[in-house]
Amino acid sequence: MSIVVQKYGGSSVSSIDKIKNIAKSIIERVKKGDKVVVVVSAMGDSTDDLLKMAKQISDNPDKRELDSLLSTGEIVSSSLLSMAIKSFGYDAISFNSFQIQLKTEGLHGKSLIEDVNEKIILDNLNQNKIVVIAGFQGVNNKGDVTTLGRGGSDTTAVALAVKLNGECEIYTDVDGIYTADPREFKNPKKIEKIDYEEILELASLGARVMHSRSVELAQKYKIKVYVGRSLGEMNGTYIMEVKDMNLESKPITGMATSDEDVALSIKNINYDENIIASIFGEIAKQNINVDMISQTTPIDEKVNVSFTIPSEDLIDCKKLLLNYVKEDEILVDESICKFSVVGLGMKSTSGVAARVFEIFDKNNIKVKMVTTSEIRITCAINKEDKLKALELIGREFNL
Amino acid sequence: MSIVVQKYGGSSVSSIDKIKNIAKSIIERVKKGDKVVVVVSAMGDSTDDLLKMAKQISDNPDKRELDSLLSTGEIVSSSLLSMAIKSFGYDAISFNSFQIQLKTEGLHGKSLIEDVNEKIILDNLNQNKIVVIAGFQGVNNKGDVTTLGRGGSDTTAVALAVKLNGECEIYTDVDGIYTADPREFKNPKKIEKIDYEEILELASLGARVMHSRSVELAQKYKIKVYVGRSLGEMNGTYIMEVKDMNLESKPITGMATSDEDVALSIKNINYDENIIASIFGEIAKQNINVDMISQTTPIDEKVNVSFTIPSEDLIDCKKLLLNYVKEDEILVDESICKFSVVGLGMKSTSGVAARVFEIFDKNNIKVKMVTTSEIRITCAINKEDKLKALELIGREFNL
Repeated sequence: MSIVVQKYGGSSVSSIDKIKNIAKSIIERVKKGDKVVVVVSAMGDSTDDLLKMAKQISDNPDKRELDSLLSTGEIVSSSLLSMAIKSFGYDAISFNSFQIQLKTEGLHGKSLIEDVNEKIILDNLNQNKIVVIAGFQGVNNKGDVTTLGRGGSDTTAVALAVKLNGECEIYTDVDGIYTADPREFKNPKKIEKIDYEEILELASLGARVMHSRSVELAQKYKIKVYVGRSLGEMNGTYIMEVKDMNLESKPITGMATSDEDVALSIKNINYDENIIASIFGEIAKQNINVDMISQTTPIDEKVNVSFTIPSEDLIDCKKLLLNYVKEDEILVDESICKFSVVGLGMKSTSGVAARVFEIFDKNNIKVKMVTTSEIRITCAINKEDKLKALELIGREFNL
Repeated sequence: MSIVVQKYGGSSVSSIDKIKNIAKSIIERVKKGDKVVVVVSAMGDSTDDLLKMAKQISDNPDKRELDSLLSTGEIVSSSLLSMAIKSFGYDAISFNSFQIQLKTEGLHGKSLIEDVNEKIILDNLNQNKIVVIAGFQGVNNKGDVTTLGRGGSDTTAVALAVKLNGECEIYTDVDGIYTADPREFKNPKKIEKIDYEEILELASLGARVMHSRSVELAQKYKIKVYVGRSLGEMNGTYIMEVKDMNLESKPITGMATSDEDVALSIKNINYDENIIASIFGEIAKQNINVDMISQTTPIDEKVNVSFTIPSEDLIDCKKLLLNYVKEDEILVDESICKFSVVGLGMKSTSGVAARVFEIFDKNNIKVKMVTTSEIRITCAINKEDKLKALELIGREFNL
């Protein structure tokens, strides 16, 4: 018996007609002999609609009650999908988190899955039922309803695949993962296989293909995850351990950009690790997510420090910095764009960074900041250079 | 510590503003020193909206999945109400059926409450929390979500009042129970106290003030139930055991009418109890609810049998009768209206029926069929005589 856990996102179940079509597609899969567990998100914009009601009550609605409220969206879609499957003559059953004992820990709105009683699911699969699970939610040890955070249904699906020792398929409204965002880069190539590490770097850089936590979980338990379109051919992308990098492999798998950051620089601050640590400590306390950081070599015991933060946090962050430095010592650059290239191949291919910098230099693209990991190079460049950078790097590395 | 269980119907929580107002009203009650448990229905038409989606999937949606679907409406309103109370600075907590172990038995869509873990509720009340419960639902012994049937939140509230040894208040969009429907009878009087028996007779006759099952439950455990407007003065109606009927009490407490039935008569069937029993047995098997039945004395071993059924079942019922009798032996009367007067006082006041019949006779209101109980007289009259009957009987008995 081969078990497959399929996850359908909100846009795949946004109408009754779509739910019926998904039901038919699941039945086709069952006819091929697979046991199918389905995880569903809430229909279309229904989570946003629920959130909107909560915001009408309070700017900061109680988190326990908010989780209870938001959890209903997936219960609606799971009940309807199960109903649809049954209406086509196949047996199905929907479960909420209480029913499969999907236990979570941690904060409301961003809980982590602790465990799930897979026996209940297996019993139902063995009775030839299609099991439909409300994604995105669980129950904590106090018996409160919890949610896993936006995109959490991906994590529900991977967790179930782990416990059921099954395959995982994430169905969405894109037909796979591409070497770049098709809205920005003409004719990117679809990636057939991508390593967990690569997708994690791409996801955090704004590719937003899958919930990062779900990829981390898949990586931890080596679960192969298929990402593709809800009702299409199986020609999407597999997220998996990519061991067999042959010599011809491209060093770069994909590139991603993000326009949502701003660069801040502080001029001539005293070179005192305590002060610098204190500044970043205070920024962290405000839940402002600092990404790239660069610091110049001290000259006369003075250094310049630059870093990027999400644009929306600029006002708060500047206010905080004024406790340490004067206004004219703070430089703000709102014109930056983060441009990243990611590839497992960088581990074995040297000089990738050099090739990138050389291309940028030849074409007058000014690199304002750089950070790297073993498989990623991120440059802060001007927003106006973004498309040119994608074009040049895309051509150079055959993306 | 005095515990009060308040139930708010769908129209009382149909918008965020209404939910906020209900929250304020509950807080006022808590300030007076009461411990408050709140049972809520789904917001406005949301149950109908969910049902509509299910019907788009199937004319006969799977009942287990339908219950799971419909249960979400009350979870939404209970979460929002709890959120609203907390936003006003008072502590509150919402619970679904899994959380308070509200156990049910019986069929999906019309389950009966078996038990509830009141300890969880009491613990939270003792922590000075306002406890908000999703009405209308429970969990059966298989762990499936079940619903109690339309109006089931009333039953949830009474059941909780029983277990918590508290008072029960049903808030709705009418300000109490009247001697007749104000849409039909000008200036009916509000009833201050009404006996369980009387409201049961009125409810089944179409007064639709409260879910009958909830009244039966209240009667069984002698729970005093207040019915009134959500945000008004406490001048509604108490449903309770009315023992102290004094000599001046009116023999009739209220009157009700129903236009939703049709009368069927079968002429000259053989006077054979087997045939007659068999006919009614078959009708019952089709879940057609026969109400009034009258049979003439046998003449030449032939009898006429008349009975009323809901109009919507007429086609099915006629088809069934044709297995026993010929078409021209079946008479259909779609012009009838059921007119009922109800009153505990009838037990002690003789001649009430005679007074009713005399008034009808004097005023040319033809009584086509009659059934009575100890505290009720129901006559089938012509629809066109309905308002006249209400007017005459209302005046005669000072309603």
